[in-house]
Amino acid sequence: MRASSFILALNREVTYFERNRERILQELIEFLRIPSISTLPEHQGDVRRAAEFAAANLKAAGLENVELIEGRGNPLVYADWLKAPGKPVLLLYGHYDVQPPDPLEEWKSPPFEPEIRGGDIFARGASDDKGQTLILMKAVEYFLQERGELPVNVQFLLEGEEEVGGEHIAGYVASKPPRLKAGAAVICDTELFAPGLPTLCVGLRGIVYGELIVEGASHDLHSGVYGGVAPNPIMAIAEILTALKDRDGRILIPGFLDRVRPPSPKELEAWSRLPFDEEEYKRKEVGVTELVGEPGYSVFERTWARPTLEVHGIRGGFTGEGAKTVIPAKALAKISMRLVADQEPDEAAAQLAEAVRKAAPKGVRAEFRVIHGAAPSLVDPENPFIAAAAEALTETFGRETVFIRSGGSIPIAGLFDKHLGIPSVLMGFGLPDDNLHAPNEKFHLPNLFKGMEAVAAYFERLGREALP
Amino acid sequence: MRASSFILALNREVTYFERNRERILQELIEFLRIPSISTLPEHQGDVRRAAEFAAANLKAAGLENVELIEGRGNPLVYADWLKAPGKPVLLLYGHYDVQPPDPLEEWKSPPFEPEIRGGDIFARGASDDKGQTLILMKAVEYFLQERGELPVNVQFLLEGEEEVGGEHIAGYVASKPPRLKAGAAVICDTELFAPGLPTLCVGLRGIVYGELIVEGASHDLHSGVYGGVAPNPIMAIAEILTALKDRDGRILIPGFLDRVRPPSPKELEAWSRLPFDEEEYKRKEVGVTELVGEPGYSVFERTWARPTLEVHGIRGGFTGEGAKTVIPAKALAKISMRLVADQEPDEAAAQLAEAVRKAAPKGVRAEFRVIHGAAPSLVDPENPFIAAAAEALTETFGRETVFIRSGGSIPIAGLFDKHLGIPSVLMGFGLPDDNLHAPNEKFHLPNLFKGMEAVAAYFERLGREALP
Repeated sequence: MRASSFILALNREVTYFERNRERILQELIEFLRIPSISTLPEHQGDVRRAAEFAAANLKAAGLENVELIEGRGNPLVYADWLKAPGKPVLLLYGHYDVQPPDPLEEWKSPPFEPEIRGGDIFARGASDDKGQTLILMKAVEYFLQERGELPVNVQFLLEGEEEVGGEHIAGYVASKPPRLKAGAAVICDTELFAPGLPTLCVGLRGIVYGELIVEGASHDLHSGVYGGVAPNPIMAIAEILTALKDRDGRILIPGFLDRVRPPSPKELEAWSRLPFDEEEYKRKEVGVTELVGEPGYSVFERTWARPTLEVHGIRGGFTGEGAKTVIPAKALAKISMRLVADQEPDEAAAQLAEAVRKAAPKGVRAEFRVIHGAAPSLVDPENPFIAAAAEALTETFGRETVFIRSGGSIPIAGLFDKHLGIPSVLMGFGLPDDNLHAPNEKFHLPNLFKGMEAVAAYFERLGREALP
Repeated sequence: MRASSFILALNREVTYFERNRERILQELIEFLRIPSISTLPEHQGDVRRAAEFAAANLKAAGLENVELIEGRGNPLVYADWLKAPGKPVLLLYGHYDVQPPDPLEEWKSPPFEPEIRGGDIFARGASDDKGQTLILMKAVEYFLQERGELPVNVQFLLEGEEEVGGEHIAGYVASKPPRLKAGAAVICDTELFAPGLPTLCVGLRGIVYGELIVEGASHDLHSGVYGGVAPNPIMAIAEILTALKDRDGRILIPGFLDRVRPPSPKELEAWSRLPFDEEEYKRKEVGVTELVGEPGYSVFERTWARPTLEVHGIRGGFTGEGAKTVIPAKALAKISMRLVADQEPDEAAAQLAEAVRKAAPKGVRAEFRVIHGAAPSLVDPENPFIAAAAEALTETFGRETVFIRSGGSIPIAGLFDKHLGIPSVLMGFGLPDDNLHAPNEKFHLPNLFKGMEAVAAYFERLGREALP
C-alpha cells in the first residue's frame, strides 16, 4: 500500500489510467467493432456510428460544445474545452474512419472483432487511427475527470475521410473557421522509431499523384501488319519514365530539385545516431536483395529528405493468358512524386506535365493529369510546441526523444500550416510493424497507455510555459 | 446463245462457277454459320461440325481418301486426288476454325448469321479462312465434276487450330508423314495488295512471343515509407524496354540483326512501284498522326523486311480509379519480336533473354519466358511453283502480278519448309479492309469467284509444265 500511494503522489495520471484500464480497453474494443470503412459506400452508416461514438465519448469525458459538423462527406467531430485563459490552445486531430480489411482470408482474427494476443490488440483501425485517437481523448478525460480542469485549452477535430482524401476537413480548414484558434495541432497518427524509443516526427513528404495517359493509333493494331511503323503507347510510357528518372534514381525533371532544402548538419548527425540495422531493414522490412536509390544519400535521406518519382501501376494492351499480338491504341500509368520542403505541389505538377510532353516520342499524345496533391511539411525542432513535446516524451519514456521525419504524406499537417498558420506536433505511438492498411493490423497496448501518459505530461508542461 | 457458248469454249471454269454460283454461296453460308471458335472450349462441338462439313464437301466434290485425322486437339481434314501420274503434287492448306467474335455489339449483322451487303458477305470467318478455304475446294470440284480429272495431284490438309497455335498440324507435319509428297504447298489465307491487283506473298515474318516478368520486393510496399530505396518492377520494365530498343526504333539486342538478309535491289525496286499512298495509309489505315520506326527504311521495308520488338501488354500495381500509393512487388509485360529471313527463333529468343538479364536494373529479378515461336519464311519468286502462280494470276486478273511480303506470321509456311522441304505459294484473295479478327469481318464476293478461277488456271498451267 505504501508503494502505490508513493506512485500516486508522483504520477496521478498513471494510476488513473491503471485504475480505468479495463473500461478504456472496453471503449477501444467498442470503437474498433464499428466497421467505419470510408472507401466503401455500403459502410456509410457505420462511418456515422463511429463519429457518434467518438462524440458521445468526448461528451462523457467532460468536453463541451460537442458537435458533428456536417458537410459534403462524413461529419467532422468537434469538441472543446477552453477554460484555461492565457494558456495555449491545442487542436487535437485524429480520424475515426479505417481502411478496407481485405484480403480477409489473411487475418488471424476477424478485422472487426478485436482480439488481444500477447501485448497487442488486433483489429482494423487499432493503430490507424482509432487507438491513437483514443489516446488524445483519454488524456483529456483524465484531467477533466480527475482534476476538474485541463492545464491547456483544447479543441478536438476528428475526421471520417482520412482514408479517402479528406475533402471535408480540407474544405473546413481552408475556410479558416474563426472558432479554430489553436497555436499548434497535435496529430496522433505516426509511430515510434523503435519500441520504447520516444519519437517526434518533424517532417512529412508532400505528394503529387496523377495519371500518365498515352495515346497512339486510333484503334488497336496487329503487330505483324503494322509493327515497324505504328507508335506503341506502352513503349512510349517506358521512354517517358526513363527520360524522367535515370537508372540510378536521379530525377531528371528540369527545375524539380531547385527548391529542395537539404537537412541541416545537426539533423543529419542525429539521424546517424538512430538505432538502425540497414541489413535487417533491407532483408526483413523492405524484403529486397538490394536497396536502390540516389547515389550519395543515406537511407534516411532517400526516404525522408529527397523527393521521389514512382510508378504505382500500369495497364495497356493484352495481359491475359497466352499471346495476343496487339499494338494497343492507349496505355496508362499511375505515377506520383513525393515532395520535400520547400517544393510546391502545383509547381512540381506543372514541371512534370511539361517534362512528360517533352519526353513523349513521336507519334503519340502524352498527358499527365493530376488526381491529388499535398504540400510537404517540416517543423523546427526548436519551436516551443515541439520542444515541450520532446521533453514530455523524454520524461514519460525515460529516454531521450529522437526527431525523425516520415517519407509518407499527412496532408492535414500541410493544410493546418497553410490555412491556420500553425505547426503540427506529430506525436504518435504506433510501431513500424503495426501492419497499417494490411491484414492483422495491431496496436501495442503498452503504447496505448504510455501514449496517454505522454500526452498528459505534454499538456502539463505546456500549461506551465508561456506559449501562444 | 452464241456469245455464251463462245465464252464457254474459252473459259469453262468461269461458266462452271457462274452456273453454280447460288449453290456455292449457300455452301459458304452453311460453313460460316458454324461458330467454330477454337479458343472457346464451349464451341468444341462446333469446331468438329466445321471439320465434318469440310470433309463432306470434299467428298461430294469427288476427292478420295477423305479422312479426319484425330490427335491431341481438333481434327485435321485430309483428302486427296492423286491420279495424274508424272504431274506435280500440291498440298492445299486452309483452316476451318475462326476467331471469337467479340465485341459483339459492334457487329452490324450477327457474326454467325452471314449477310450479303453490297458485294460483300459479312460473317466471322468470311475471309479468315472459310471463304478462302472454299476457293481451293471449289477449284478442285470444278475439275472433278466438270472434267472428271485434275491436271495436277492434290492433297488437302485443313486444320482447326490456326487461331490457337496450330499444335496438331505442327506435330503432324513434324512427323513427316510418308503420305505427304507435295512439291509445294498452296496457302489461301492472305490478301491482295489492292482490289483487283493480283498478288503473291513471298515472305512472312517469324515471331518469338513471350513474357517479361520482373520481381522486386517480397511484397507490395508503401511508396511514402519506402519510396527512394525500394526497387520498382514497373520502372525496371521501362528501363529494360528502353535498353532493348532506342527511341528511333533501332533494336539494340546484341547479335540480333546479324542474320537479317536485306531484300534484293530487284525486290526493293518492285516495292517502289506498288500503288501506295503513304499519307492515306498513315491517316486511314494505321490511324496515326505520324509513322514511326527505323530511320532509313521505307514503310515496306519496316513492316516486311525488318525485325521488330513490340510490347503488347503490360500489367502491374494499382490501375483502378483514383490513387493508391503502392510500389508493386511484381510486373509483367507481353513482348514479341517479329523475325525476318534468316533469323532463327531459338537464337533470337536466347539473345533477348540474355539482353533482358543484362538490362535489368539493380534490386530486381527479370526473366523472359518464351510462349511460342515461328520461323520467318521467304521464297524465291523464280521458283517454278511461284512463277507459274504469278502467271496464272496475271492471266485471270488481266494485270501483272505483284510480289509482296507480309509482316505477319503464318507459322505453317515455316513448318512446311522445315519439315517437308517445300515452298509455300501464298495465293490469297482477301482485301486489306476485310476486318480480320475484328467486328464486321467480310469477304468480297467477286474475289471469291475470281479466286476459284485463278486457282483453276494455276492447276492447268502447272499441269502443262514439267515440275516435281
